[in-house]
Amino acid sequence: MHPMEIERKSFRIVSELLGKLDRSGEELEIIRRVAHATADIEMAKGLLFHPQAVARGIEAVRAGHNIITDVHMLEAGINKRFIERFGGRTGCFIAHPRVVKEAAANGATRASTAMKFAAFELQGTLAAIGNAPSALEELCRMMEEEDCRPALIVGLPVGFVGAVEAKARLAGQNTVPYIANADRRGGSAAAAAAVNAILRLAAKDADTLVSCQA
Amino acid sequence: MHPMEIERKSFRIVSELLGKLDRSGEELEIIRRVAHATADIEMAKGLLFHPQAVARGIEAVRAGHNIITDVHMLEAGINKRFIERFGGRTGCFIAHPRVVKEAAANGATRASTAMKFAAFELQGTLAAIGNAPSALEELCRMMEEEDCRPALIVGLPVGFVGAVEAKARLAGQNTVPYIANADRRGGSAAAAAAVNAILRLAAKDADTLVSCQA
Repeated sequence: MHPMEIERKSFRIVSELLGKLDRSGEELEIIRRVAHATADIEMAKGLLFHPQAVARGIEAVRAGHNIITDVHMLEAGINKRFIERFGGRTGCFIAHPRVVKEAAANGATRASTAMKFAAFELQGTLAAIGNAPSALEELCRMMEEEDCRPALIVGLPVGFVGAVEAKARLAGQNTVPYIANADRRGGSAAAAAAVNAILRLAAKDADTLVSCQA
Repeated sequence: MHPMEIERKSFRIVSELLGKLDRSGEELEIIRRVAHATADIEMAKGLLFHPQAVARGIEAVRAGHNIITDVHMLEAGINKRFIERFGGRTGCFIAHPRVVKEAAANGATRASTAMKFAAFELQGTLAAIGNAPSALEELCRMMEEEDCRPALIVGLPVGFVGAVEAKARLAGQNTVPYIANADRRGGSAAAAAAVNAILRLAAKDADTLVSCQA
């Protein structure tokens, strides 16, 4: 089967399984991509969108802002060709020598220390959390106490300890647009799919714009 | 909460939710790590182990063999410090210029073309598939027709098209040991957790060996 045919068939199945959802076209596109990537229809259906999430995400990408991730696995899943097209790049600081050293000294996770380390980088960017609840908790703290203002947070950490709480904290604020969910599911594949869907939407808008201007 | 305490708490919850399973201690360790990484207890419980899977995986790692993955996301999730300790490294060829070119020319997926490309590399290695059913299908074909003999295949592709079929083909043969499952779930996080669990078991055995020799 040709790769394009595999993808078409997968999206047909995803659309059938999702059924009719009361969402905007752009939110639906993100939900479909997450379902396609994870094969988890219920998780995709359960995605929570801040009303400004998609618009602010597209805006940030098109302005050339970067994408900061909590873990390398999520960074690896982001389509580099797409983000570089807009002049942005991906960044992940979990293995930076200063992060490793400071995390050990403070008895903190490397993922949360990496967010603290990226305080300046995070302004105006798309921040994506696909693994560590502690990274999302630190990000929320920085938003509350230090005026940290990413353009959009894709907050989908996974796990049994702290993931639900961190996502509830994110969805409970209204300062920074977010995409999140309400249970322990999540993960790098889901977060990467959401980010890549936004990159596709940004490219699509740009194409339309170019053809209108021509 | 200290990182170690988060991990301990998570594994306590995982053990409670898994309940009593009729598995070897090493298989149980892999199941626990997959559950911890994905927060998907049912998927972890459903892992299928070839009787020689764990032993052959540990043996290959300790002999310094490499780990070949289908996608960069899975490669990014593998603990480099652990594998390099044994003299091995990770490899993923999905973005190799020749793979990209040949896949386009043949109307094949890049992931399956990358397996073909790695024919020599795959002998004796640990092969891990966390995303693409077509990569696992190609690997099975190479085993059937070209004497391709990885030491162990961690086969956990995900998705609605071909994932179940590819994993059934893997679990239906007895030539190459495997870890797989029987439904559409899987993913890079699950595959990375299984591989990292094997690396941990290999290191543990090695530590024991060293202390016995001392």
